[in-house]
This record gives sequence, structure tokens and C-alpha cells, in this order.
Amino acid sequence: MEFVKMHGLGNDFIIVQTGSWEEAGDLQPYARMICDRNFGVGADGLVAIGKDPQMDIFMRIFNPDGSEAEMCGNAIRCVARYAYENGLVKEPNLSLRTLAGSRYPVVETSAGQVKNIKVDMGKPILKRSLIPVQGRGSNVKILLEASMGTIEATAVSMGNPHCIIFVDDINKIPVALWGAELEVHPFFPAKTNVEFVQILGRNEMIMRVFERGAGLTLACGTGACAALVAAVLNGFADRDARVHLPGGDLLIEWSQDDQHVYMTGPAEQVFQGSIDLQQIT
Amino acid sequence: MEFVKMHGLGNDFIIVQTGSWEEAGDLQPYARMICDRNFGVGADGLVAIGKDPQMDIFMRIFNPDGSEAEMCGNAIRCVARYAYENGLVKEPNLSLRTLAGSRYPVVETSAGQVKNIKVDMGKPILKRSLIPVQGRGSNVKILLEASMGTIEATAVSMGNPHCIIFVDDINKIPVALWGAELEVHPFFPAKTNVEFVQILGRNEMIMRVFERGAGLTLACGTGACAALVAAVLNGFADRDARVHLPGGDLLIEWSQDDQHVYMTGPAEQVFQGSIDLQQIT
Repeated sequence: MEFVKMHGLGNDFIIVQTGSWEEAGDLQPYARMICDRNFGVGADGLVAIGKDPQMDIFMRIFNPDGSEAEMCGNAIRCVARYAYENGLVKEPNLSLRTLAGSRYPVVETSAGQVKNIKVDMGKPILKRSLIPVQGRGSNVKILLEASMGTIEATAVSMGNPHCIIFVDDINKIPVALWGAELEVHPFFPAKTNVEFVQILGRNEMIMRVFERGAGLTLACGTGACAALVAAVLNGFADRDARVHLPGGDLLIEWSQDDQHVYMTGPAEQVFQGSIDLQQIT
Repeated sequence: MEFVKMHGLGNDFIIVQTGSWEEAGDLQPYARMICDRNFGVGADGLVAIGKDPQMDIFMRIFNPDGSEAEMCGNAIRCVARYAYENGLVKEPNLSLRTLAGSRYPVVETSAGQVKNIKVDMGKPILKRSLIPVQGRGSNVKILLEASMGTIEATAVSMGNPHCIIFVDDINKIPVALWGAELEVHPFFPAKTNVEFVQILGRNEMIMRVFERGAGLTLACGTGACAALVAAVLNGFADRDARVHLPGGDLLIEWSQDDQHVYMTGPAEQVFQGSIDLQQIT
């Protein structure tokens, strides 16, 4: 089986072409082994893509534990770049079928070179019961009682829940420790991703993320979107900002026009490979 | 650059062919990026091999931090299999030049298929000052004072120092915690690898390893050799035994004839790939 290894801000994926959405499912049993970093190729996900009858292309993403993910912002950027550079689509504006619905990434080029990929991440969900967060009232300035004291947080959903905490000095925060505690705080019945954000200016911030079920990661696309939304709601930032993550930068814009959040960032090919699936099972 | 990804008991390597020992050095600056598991190919080491003027082949191994390793038992098995299956050598008995000196691995086949690779790991070093361990007396039944109490240990060097501790139930040992403390115990001036070993019979044992400078790993070839030697010296095992490691099994024999330790184990190819080095730097 031929594949390409790509990453978006260090969130890395094995990209494989398959004939159809249904055929992509045949790869699911191999996801665990192929994503294993010692015994397999190693990745955060196995992504199957191909031409779709209704949309330009489809993508399905399988996690290292063998389950199927609904979608992933970093993976979408990789898929869009791959499809554009390998001739699966002719135009830089793609329509993409995912398990979470349609997505419309745009490949941005400069002098014939791919620079970034912009992805419409949809409208943020700000209603407390839908994020979900326990209790009534605003999703902004929620007070959480925790072992480190009372924490002021803003909750935002981008399809998945986020708990954003603004801090003065990100380097003084024990992100893994606090993140693990707040991930399962009783205020968040579906658990939550936890983002610590230091504002550098109206259009710039640093973020460290503790992903729900995954712990510390190099980047979280939906987390960066949620952080920008929370910063706007708190009056800390304008509606577009650069978010510095351990794996690199994302440009996030919360559009005044359609209220959608747009995420712009890189996707890089690392290598191409060939694997005999029978050899690793 | 073309490469093959292989592993020995989960200890994984990127194998690249180069023209000469000196040319292999040109790869060293790329080791850090190419071994990175998110931004590169991902591996425990980058191994350059090729035909040698004096020996059959040479191998040089570069660590993920960019430094050069002297040698590695798991990597030697991968190199031997690769060289045999890719026609770099015609005979299953190889002579191999490494930074630590000559090695003579033997590829064992059955019905034309490679089964295991046997490697002469040399003589164990039992003299306390050469391992090195502080103080005088035997290398067996050394009493170490530590936070968990007085630990009885046996010290063996296979070119690198090992501290072997026999336990009744390996599952009850906090290997990471104890290993980290004993790695830097003042008795070991060059620090030490730490192995916890549960004897299952005269020819079978389970081992968990805390590698010096690396922490918990799936397998350690020299550690398995040291464990067998220590078990023989304590009267717990015969001179050949199967050692169960988290990554799989190794067969270790301490030869009565030449006093060398022989390690036999598998090496597997996972995939082949191609990477543009300029793209990842």
C-alpha cells in the first residue's frame, strides 16, 4: 500500500488513497498497527481519501486506537494540500465530505507554491447547555473551583467542548497537571479540552493545550479557534489573531459577516512510503 | 533519499545505504529531524550502512539527539537482515564494522525465510572497577541503600553498565520510579542501566528495563545479556535462557567455550520510504 506522511503543526497523518468512502472502511482494522510509532509507520491518525460522487473528495480518519474520528482541523489541511498537489482537484477551493459533514478548505498559493490552507470551522457554540457546561448564565467568566483555587474560565464549543483560561505568564502554568484536573471538572459533563492562553496583543496570543483524552499535544485546531473566540468575548483581542502553539502558528479569524471561524495554517509532506499490510499484522 | 524502516523488538531504525563510512557522517546533521516522530520519519536511530573495504559492511548509528552511538544490539540485527536480504552480502555470516569495533552477526534462515539474527555480544565485564561500580568486592549481591530500602543488586557491563535486580513479582515493581533513582545511584559513577528480572525457570525470565538516559524502553539487547549473566552468577539460571521483554523475546546464551554472550532475536522490516531531506530542514 502506497502512502504519504504529512503533518499540520506536528499533528501527523498517514494519507492513503482509496476508491470510495466504503472501501476506506477496509483500512480501519489496520489503523492501530500502522499508527504504532515503534512497530508501524507511526502517526496520530490514518486518513483515507478519494474522489467522492457528490463532493470533490471524501476523507475518513481513523485514530491510533482503531476508532473513527469525526474530523480534525489539522488533518483537513493535509488532505486539502495533498488533493490539490496530486491532481485530485483542479481548483484550490475544495468541497470535502467528512463524517462530521461538509467542509470547504481553500489552498492558498504564492508563486505556484502552496503556502497555507484555510478551513471554515463553522460557527462557535456559546450556549452553555450546548457546549455543554453545567448551570445557567453566560459562558464567559465561569468560576471553577479546583485544587489550585478558583479559576476563571470561558467555555466555547467548536463541535467539541473547550475550557479557555487566560493567564499572565504561560510558562508558569503546570499545563499537564491543571489540564488533567480541569478536563474532568464536574462542570463539563462531556469532559473538556483545556486551553491556557497568554495574550500578547490585540492580534497575537500564546496557547498551550491539554486535549480531552489525549493530554498534551503540539497543536489543536479547534482549540485555537475556541481561544480566539473566548479572547474576543472577553475583550482581550480583535476578531483575527495569530495563535502560537508548540507545533507552530495558526491564523484564526472569527468573521463578522457569517460568524464562522476560519483557521489558516500550514500542512507539510514529510515522506512517501510503501508498506505491506500483511507484514505488520 | 531512499530508506527502509525496521525494528528489533520495537526498537526502531531508519536504514539508509551510503557509499562509505565517511559519507555516512554527512547524514548526522539530519538525524534529529528525521528521527522526530511528529515532524520527521520517526525512529530510535538513523543507521547508515554500506560495503566496507575491510569488513563485509559498516554501520554507523545516529541518535535522535544528533549524537553518534557506538553500537546497538537491536540495530545490528536489523542491519544484518537488511544486508542479507538486499544482496549486500551473500553469506548469512557477516563481518560488520561498528564504532565499537567488529561484530559478527549470523542470519538464521528456515526454508529460505529469515527467522532470527544471532549476534556475538562479546565477553561480559565482571570486574567492579571496570563496570564501573564504587567500592571493592564482588559484583554479585551488592547492597544498595535507596529510598525504597536496601536493594540487592548484581552489576555487569556489556560495554555499558547494568544493575540487575531480581524480584519475585515484576508486576509489583514501579520500574520507572525505582529505575530513575537507581540510574544515578552514587555506586555507579558512569550512571547505569537498571534491569528488574523475575525468574520463571532455569531457562526463562521476564525483564523490564530502565535505560540510562532513555528511561523505559521496549527492549534492551545488552540488558538482556547482562540479566542472563547475572542470573547465572547468582545460580538462578542455566547459561542459556529466553528473556521476555515488553517488545518481544530474546534468546541469550553465555557460552561455556569462549565466554562470549550470544543474543538471538528477530528484526522486521515495516516499510520503505523516500524523503526529500531539504524538505524537513
